[in-house]
Amino acid sequence: MIKAAEKRLKNNSNYTPMLNSPFLDKIAGKKIYVKAECLQKTGSFKFRGGWSFISNLSEKDKSLGVLAFSSGNHAQGVSAAAKVFSAPCTIVMPKDAPKIKIENTRNYGAQVVLYDRTKEVREDIGYAIAKKKNFKVIHPYEEPLVIAGQGTTGLEIAQQAKELGITDAEVLVCCGGGGLISGIALALAELSPKFNVRPVEPEHFDDTKRSLERGKIVANKRISGSICDAILTPKPGENTFKIIKEICDSGLVVNDEKVLKAIALAFLHLKIILEPGGAVALAAALYLPHLIKSTHVIVVGTGGNINTDIFTSALKSINA
Amino acid sequence: MIKAAEKRLKNNSNYTPMLNSPFLDKIAGKKIYVKAECLQKTGSFKFRGGWSFISNLSEKDKSLGVLAFSSGNHAQGVSAAAKVFSAPCTIVMPKDAPKIKIENTRNYGAQVVLYDRTKEVREDIGYAIAKKKNFKVIHPYEEPLVIAGQGTTGLEIAQQAKELGITDAEVLVCCGGGGLISGIALALAELSPKFNVRPVEPEHFDDTKRSLERGKIVANKRISGSICDAILTPKPGENTFKIIKEICDSGLVVNDEKVLKAIALAFLHLKIILEPGGAVALAAALYLPHLIKSTHVIVVGTGGNINTDIFTSALKSINA
Repeated sequence: MIKAAEKRLKNNSNYTPMLNSPFLDKIAGKKIYVKAECLQKTGSFKFRGGWSFISNLSEKDKSLGVLAFSSGNHAQGVSAAAKVFSAPCTIVMPKDAPKIKIENTRNYGAQVVLYDRTKEVREDIGYAIAKKKNFKVIHPYEEPLVIAGQGTTGLEIAQQAKELGITDAEVLVCCGGGGLISGIALALAELSPKFNVRPVEPEHFDDTKRSLERGKIVANKRISGSICDAILTPKPGENTFKIIKEICDSGLVVNDEKVLKAIALAFLHLKIILEPGGAVALAAALYLPHLIKSTHVIVVGTGGNINTDIFTSALKSINA
Repeated sequence: MIKAAEKRLKNNSNYTPMLNSPFLDKIAGKKIYVKAECLQKTGSFKFRGGWSFISNLSEKDKSLGVLAFSSGNHAQGVSAAAKVFSAPCTIVMPKDAPKIKIENTRNYGAQVVLYDRTKEVREDIGYAIAKKKNFKVIHPYEEPLVIAGQGTTGLEIAQQAKELGITDAEVLVCCGGGGLISGIALALAELSPKFNVRPVEPEHFDDTKRSLERGKIVANKRISGSICDAILTPKPGENTFKIIKEICDSGLVVNDEKVLKAIALAFLHLKIILEPGGAVALAAALYLPHLIKSTHVIVVGTGGNINTDIFTSALKSINA
């Protein structure tokens, strides 16, 4: 499925670069490679999953339309893909999502339905609208076609690592619902079986790490209270956790302070923009090297859709 | 020479992506593609020229060492390449160069000699040291091996444009001494002869534009007073201007205010960091579309080595 998704994505998504800086290597005492998915269309890897799903629909289903619920990156990925296929698109978004994500989603032509994260359940709202209007729902991480689309990132990582002569590595992936990490882990299990794939999460939102430790799905106690908006899912998905449990290694956790520093260091040394939820894996590579066995660390920089005020405060965190 | 430089650079430089955003296209009313050389090693295209020169030296000359004079990007490109070849490296830099550029040059292991841009001539200082110490001088734009190295950017542009199906385009290049634009123009004259290559310069530093209009080299009246530090050369080079005059089209000029906005829009929509001197071409594409004939505009985003205070003021310029 991942290889089929890759064929549909070819020439439609960006083959994103794998970036390195000797200055980041020096901080970690390891070789760090950042797969810069912030440079993907719509500013995050989510475009891959959205395109994978919509490109696989019948013409009739495309014309009826699609619906997604998302804090912002899946929203933009789906709405940009839907626009190319002229598929009507409705997105259910929390009203406290970053302004830039809501605006961009509207600018891609989607109809945005806002809800209150503290009082309403997005799935309930989304499925009710979809049923009434005959929209296909694109689940952000449970949908196999979405996992396959995100998994194309793993195919590229395998190829780029091979070109760089990397035969052994830990692959750190920013983790919310788990669609990206399960897709990447499936791709690498086949192509780079020596690579160790590990989820990275923000402090207080380490549901995947704790689920892995207990061998069953456990939820977060909080639903908000971190700058890492893109990956604050309540608990791992049923489908994604089955994969993660089978083929991923233990999780890592970083706090917001380290995330801000990682954003600033990516600005200084890689010249890319990472959003908080897209920088947790880099933060783990930089500040938790003692918890990483391999000397080669591949980090997925999953997205770059950040408001200017948070970015500015990240720059202040390193006084450069 | 460009193809030979490409062989020496293979697996040593980054093959940088060509990025597009529908939101930028909408502003310009054209399709804009940004060749993101800010993602090149050391944060600018200058690594290509430095590597091209040093990789071509004899083992004896490498061991004697190299010298460059530079406001910062050539400094970093040369010193990073010299480090890989274990060649001693001395860099003559203006003392008002951005702090990050001076620091990074030192961190790559070069010995930095600072001078006063308003009172001293960098060439005099550089050639005197080089003569005394037997260093090979790497001129930032007049050296043919450097032009050939920068020209590899043009080989990549030709290939990427072909993959994107672009047969007709204007190629806008940020222009200081003219090493990059002459290299790119030579590569494209052979591979994409329909492409029109044009220099872009900051207001009051449009020496190349005016030299093209008069058919002979003319100098700038000022030597400082723009945020675009990377491209404030006093006048076009003798070698580079011969090429530019022969195969480039007319120049474009943008002011600092538009440059700051272009930096902010690259942050918002492309997720890359551009420095002022690296953003003039994007600023021209966005704000001077009436002076551009082709509907496809390829912009070289030449570098991303910017201090945080200027970057923060750029973000404020669009209130996003």
